[in-house]
Amino acid sequence: MSHNTFGHMFRVTTWGESHGPALGCVVDGCPPGIALTEADIQAWLDLRRPGQGKFVTQRQEPDAVRILSGVFEDERTRELFGGQVTTGTPISLMIENVDQRSRDYSEIATAFRPGHADYAYFAKYGVRDYRGGGRQSARETAARVAAGAVARKVIAGVTVRAALVQIGPHAVDRSRWDWDETHNNPFWCPDAAMVSVWEEHLETIRKAGSSTGAIVEVEAVGVPAGWGAPVYGKLDAELAAALMSINAAKGVEIGAGFASAAFTGEENADEMRMGNDGPVFLANNAGGVLGGISTGQAVVARVAFKPTSSILTPRRSVNEAGEEVELRTKGRHDPCVGIRAVPVVEAMTACVLADAFLRHRGQTGGVVHQPGG
Amino acid sequence: MSHNTFGHMFRVTTWGESHGPALGCVVDGCPPGIALTEADIQAWLDLRRPGQGKFVTQRQEPDAVRILSGVFEDERTRELFGGQVTTGTPISLMIENVDQRSRDYSEIATAFRPGHADYAYFAKYGVRDYRGGGRQSARETAARVAAGAVARKVIAGVTVRAALVQIGPHAVDRSRWDWDETHNNPFWCPDAAMVSVWEEHLETIRKAGSSTGAIVEVEAVGVPAGWGAPVYGKLDAELAAALMSINAAKGVEIGAGFASAAFTGEENADEMRMGNDGPVFLANNAGGVLGGISTGQAVVARVAFKPTSSILTPRRSVNEAGEEVELRTKGRHDPCVGIRAVPVVEAMTACVLADAFLRHRGQTGGVVHQPGG
Amino acid sequence: MSHNTFGHMFRVTTWGESHGPALGCVVDGCPPGIALTEADIQAWLDLRRPGQGKFVTQRQEPDAVRILSGVFEDERTRELFGGQVTTGTPISLMIENVDQRSRDYSEIATAFRPGHADYAYFAKYGVRDYRGGGRQSARETAARVAAGAVARKVIAGVTVRAALVQIGPHAVDRSRWDWDETHNNPFWCPDAAMVSVWEEHLETIRKAGSSTGAIVEVEAVGVPAGWGAPVYGKLDAELAAALMSINAAKGVEIGAGFASAAFTGEENADEMRMGNDGPVFLANNAGGVLGGISTGQAVVARVAFKPTSSILTPRRSVNEAGEEVELRTKGRHDPCVGIRAVPVVEAMTACVLADAFLRHRGQTGGVVHQPGG
Amino acid sequence: MSHNTFGHMFRVTTWGESHGPALGCVVDGCPPGIALTEADIQAWLDLRRPGQGKFVTQRQEPDAVRILSGVFEDERTRELFGGQVTTGTPISLMIENVDQRSRDYSEIATAFRPGHADYAYFAKYGVRDYRGGGRQSARETAARVAAGAVARKVIAGVTVRAALVQIGPHAVDRSRWDWDETHNNPFWCPDAAMVSVWEEHLETIRKAGSSTGAIVEVEAVGVPAGWGAPVYGKLDAELAAALMSINAAKGVEIGAGFASAAFTGEENADEMRMGNDGPVFLANNAGGVLGGISTGQAVVARVAFKPTSSILTPRRSVNEAGEEVELRTKGRHDPCVGIRAVPVVEAMTACVLADAFLRHRGQTGGVVHQPGG
Repeated sequence: MSHNTFGHMFRVTTWGESHGPALGCVVDGCPPGIALTEADIQAWLDLRRPGQGKFVTQRQEPDAVRILSGVFEDERTRELFGGQVTTGTPISLMIENVDQRSRDYSEIATAFRPGHADYAYFAKYGVRDYRGGGRQSARETAARVAAGAVARKVIAGVTVRAALVQIGPHAVDRSRWDWDETHNNPFWCPDAAMVSVWEEHLETIRKAGSSTGAIVEVEAVGVPAGWGAPVYGKLDAELAAALMSINAAKGVEIGAGFASAAFTGEENADEMRMGNDGPVFLANNAGGVLGGISTGQAVVARVAFKPTSSILTPRRSVNEAGEEVELRTKGRHDPCVGIRAVPVVEAMTACVLADAFLRHRGQTGGVVHQPGG
Repeated sequence: MSHNTFGHMFRVTTWGESHGPALGCVVDGCPPGIALTEADIQAWLDLRRPGQGKFVTQRQEPDAVRILSGVFEDERTRELFGGQVTTGTPISLMIENVDQRSRDYSEIATAFRPGHADYAYFAKYGVRDYRGGGRQSARETAARVAAGAVARKVIAGVTVRAALVQIGPHAVDRSRWDWDETHNNPFWCPDAAMVSVWEEHLETIRKAGSSTGAIVEVEAVGVPAGWGAPVYGKLDAELAAALMSINAAKGVEIGAGFASAAFTGEENADEMRMGNDGPVFLANNAGGVLGGISTGQAVVARVAFKPTSSILTPRRSVNEAGEEVELRTKGRHDPCVGIRAVPVVEAMTACVLADAFLRHRGQTGGVVHQPGG
Repeated sequence: MSHNTFGHMFRVTTWGESHGPALGCVVDGCPPGIALTEADIQAWLDLRRPGQGKFVTQRQEPDAVRILSGVFEDERTRELFGGQVTTGTPISLMIENVDQRSRDYSEIATAFRPGHADYAYFAKYGVRDYRGGGRQSARETAARVAAGAVARKVIAGVTVRAALVQIGPHAVDRSRWDWDETHNNPFWCPDAAMVSVWEEHLETIRKAGSSTGAIVEVEAVGVPAGWGAPVYGKLDAELAAALMSINAAKGVEIGAGFASAAFTGEENADEMRMGNDGPVFLANNAGGVLGGISTGQAVVARVAFKPTSSILTPRRSVNEAGEEVELRTKGRHDPCVGIRAVPVVEAMTACVLADAFLRHRGQTGGVVHQPGG
Repeated sequence: MSHNTFGHMFRVTTWGESHGPALGCVVDGCPPGIALTEADIQAWLDLRRPGQGKFVTQRQEPDAVRILSGVFEDERTRELFGGQVTTGTPISLMIENVDQRSRDYSEIATAFRPGHADYAYFAKYGVRDYRGGGRQSARETAARVAAGAVARKVIAGVTVRAALVQIGPHAVDRSRWDWDETHNNPFWCPDAAMVSVWEEHLETIRKAGSSTGAIVEVEAVGVPAGWGAPVYGKLDAELAAALMSINAAKGVEIGAGFASAAFTGEENADEMRMGNDGPVFLANNAGGVLGGISTGQAVVARVAFKPTSSILTPRRSVNEAGEEVELRTKGRHDPCVGIRAVPVVEAMTACVLADAFLRHRGQTGGVVHQPGG
């Protein structure tokens, strides 16, 4: 994680501001010979796109991605790989900003929104692009989702999926968990019975000009044992950094996470039996990671998102001139940024796993050593 | 975070196994001209050292650190800097393993402790040093504490301190928080009234041959606004990785963390007023970090630690031959690894901050832009 | 240097193929508050642009650069910084490929040009974009020149300039060296008397459908003492990597370079006297770098470029089917790629120095310790 | 290359000063399951060791290496791997400094040797360990040789060997090249007839209290096609950095190197025919690298070393007080540091190749695509 780049072998560098001409990313280190089209990436971007419901920003961005480099197609690639493929060179992805609605930024141009990064950027750089949040805007996450679409292709055997498990004080009932339900509502909610509760809650929040926090849960199924590395390149440490780097994230936990603080050793330790393809675990408090290395179980993480700081209620603040002001943020804003974070959490997880896969293959050749093997 | 190295400008590489001849670290990129002696580092190691109470491992390690490189002393340094100082070259620190008690590892040599990294290491590498946990041992954290002692010198104006805030189900009462109390009990407990509760709880756990989880809270006071960088080199993302890389960590949160998921925007946004030296915040839900950049408030994080997996209760597992076994872990073990993690959390926080300081100074020159300034 | 990224603090990631829609780079870590417009960058690109004479490729590319992110302008920046400035966030630069002349690639699509990277790319990746050389094309260097233009702004007090000192067997006479002359001829030749010799030589080479090698010399004046770091981050080691990474480069030397192998210690050691602003050296065999750290003298390096491998003379080769073939490369090609390399050598040198400056400032604060100071 | 670390997947961090208690390195990212003992490493160190002849420093260092971590041996490893093996965790290697002869450093403690890094270190850091050259000492290269011994094990199919090809003005006659001869003389000279010329030359140099430069040539045979990566992670760019980072190196060239500047395209392009195991090249001007990627031919590089700056002849200089002085360097010094550089050049080449191998395997799986395959 170096400023605007993350990953070691599968490296993603993102760039772009909310109201600049475009945003995008460069994906470097991608293996060659992987079928990849703009449509492959667009599908994931469309899931993330705002403007799909009344609970996400009404900004209408087509978010059409272009692949500017790193792929190739000719007769031979069609024959060998089925069409356009990656060549192993950097994949440059660009999304133009078309809906930079003209508006008045005179207030936030000089005053710092409480809870927002305005002041921190000013203090660090002395200059900032405040239009729409600039580099701090959630629009940057479109580039993450695009990169994640490539990462998914690299770890083709792994399924990465996420769900929203809490909005404000309302958490899903895990006994009703159904992954299929996440496609039936605008919240990626896995608990059908919770949808109407959240709708009502968000409607109240929206009308009040307020906002609310949320928790996202992600799982990656199909990760073989052995990915990740001690002691600072741990899979869960890399995941923690990647997920905490998402806008508004304030907490990350793996497996049982904070709950494990209250566990006894007996409750915590996932027992093992032998299955046909290696050890089988009788629980997954570990969240699929032990000692920073994947165990073959599902990798499970949760991310807490704070409420967006852009609210209509006036808040006390200061401005660049050092004056005390009252500030309320008008304009289009998500009442719950956690909703749109779901595809971003998936994308970051996919990127971290793709990187771990390539590094593991590099150091060890990629073999999984199995008991009795 | 690259395998066994972390940091960008202030870089720490650790090495060593529990039962090898020694362990240590190389600290690279440290500024020159900083007074540094072995005693400076030893003081922090002594705080971390096991063998200080009945609730931490009874292994008796003096953990005497040696500085093998990167410092120099002559008449001129005594005159200019007051004694031995860093030279800007790599600082190699070594701690010999003197108490490698001879014992029988025949059982864990081939069977995998549930909840332990045994199986993950085997699956990845095919070979592992199982004696005392090898590289997975908490002894590795001695090298982190040593590096942290150097980091503290680099950020001399910052105070980094941590406390244990929960053991098992018993959380401290924050209204009774007193930092001074952390030095009066073996738990770094800031709530004097909680000490006896924890003692009793741990005694029960210990007698049962069980273990328990815990939560550590750390704060860094004196961090100026501007450290950290968007969007992947965020201060909180780096902190999350560093803290999650500590043995047995399962969750990390910044400021209000997971609680912020239930907040409204009004509750979450820390309002600002002007103080004499820049903005003053009326709350610190942000934990001192907004947009990945420090705000000048205290940087606050919490880390959840799972119970150690080495318990006396027999657990179902498998061994390298692929056979199903029942396993209980005899020998010296902490009933609560979270206790000993307190100085490690401090050390990792100090290292992340030292790195952020040097990177910030590199990119910007280190000026803090203040409103009205 | 990690695949397609170089630099540590001032980091450049380039992307793009010769015949894709565009090419570009992301410059990350640039300090904020630096005045930067597209015109600033375009000026350097125009110097590099092909199509300016009969001795460089006749491809007509306007090479118009766009800044897609990382800069900002409003009334306040105009007042404080004089206009549009860097914000400290990633600067994305893009150049569209407009002259992708339709042609027949059927031959080089499957056969490997001797001396070209065709075979190496095929062996590594199994798939390659052969149109115009794909990623191997010298067009990639436009992105380097663009990044170099930003780097020059970061090290505003340093002048980086290069000259061509040899084409084929014809080396300049150093006693006639005049930097001003480099702007008076299409070869960046500092020796006015050599220009006609080179013209004649290149005309012969061009008519024969052949090509020739060349040597470029670069100097950076104004670099203070102290940039660079032992022992692998040495300024000359970083320069060597950066310059050797330029297409067709086969050798790099610093200061007296290979000639120093024949020196005695007396000849080699640059003696020192005291000047008004620190030590003055009586010679510069060191090329401004000792122990990997700048000395305050001009940093001097030379780079050898091989002849382009795309020649009209038929050469024996093999093709993807494993058949032996005779191959001659038709189309537009420079008879001497070294000519166009001059601005690229300057750009890479500027980038390495900008990175060294920021790293030095990060570790030490940027002070130069002077004798008697 | 980040201060004192190099490599991406196979990473080497060195530490230590000439007159500190010890020096060493940490090798991180080494694959597991590789047989490795101290004797394996010691063999290469013994070749490098000073004190073996009258033309290298008379300092008597046993240079006994200790492996402090990263290896393991038990019955199972003896059975599976034949003894002690790497575990995939960091390998810490240490060499104690036993011959820190007590001497008077009063002069060089304050005055800067011309041609030495003394002044550069002072200007950068303000403090330096001047005893025996401190971190600038050639003793640091012992750690490189130790790391190189590990690297050789990682690329077991590759033979890396180097020879001295020029001392002062006396170059070997390549028509008499015999690798076996390099073991028959103290100069690693491949031209038996040149040995007496060099002996005489060095005797003259030594008696005069002077020193001389030299050129080392290295080749790596057995490198498959495909290692390295465009465009900044090029194999030759990484080699250039690694070799230029060796003390006293002033130039690096690959294959025909600087000579290729005088070549025509016809002379330069190595023609290809089909062999049984892929393409066969009819020449190797490329030095085994095209487009930054290995071609399957021998990788060939040359490094120029300047004369050591520590000579008996008085030279004009300045001291820390800013006074002008005359300085002559007494004590033990190599008349030709290039001689001892031979094993170091081999070691750095091996490390670069090991890193390239692991990275290539990571990104692509390690397959070589062959024509007709």
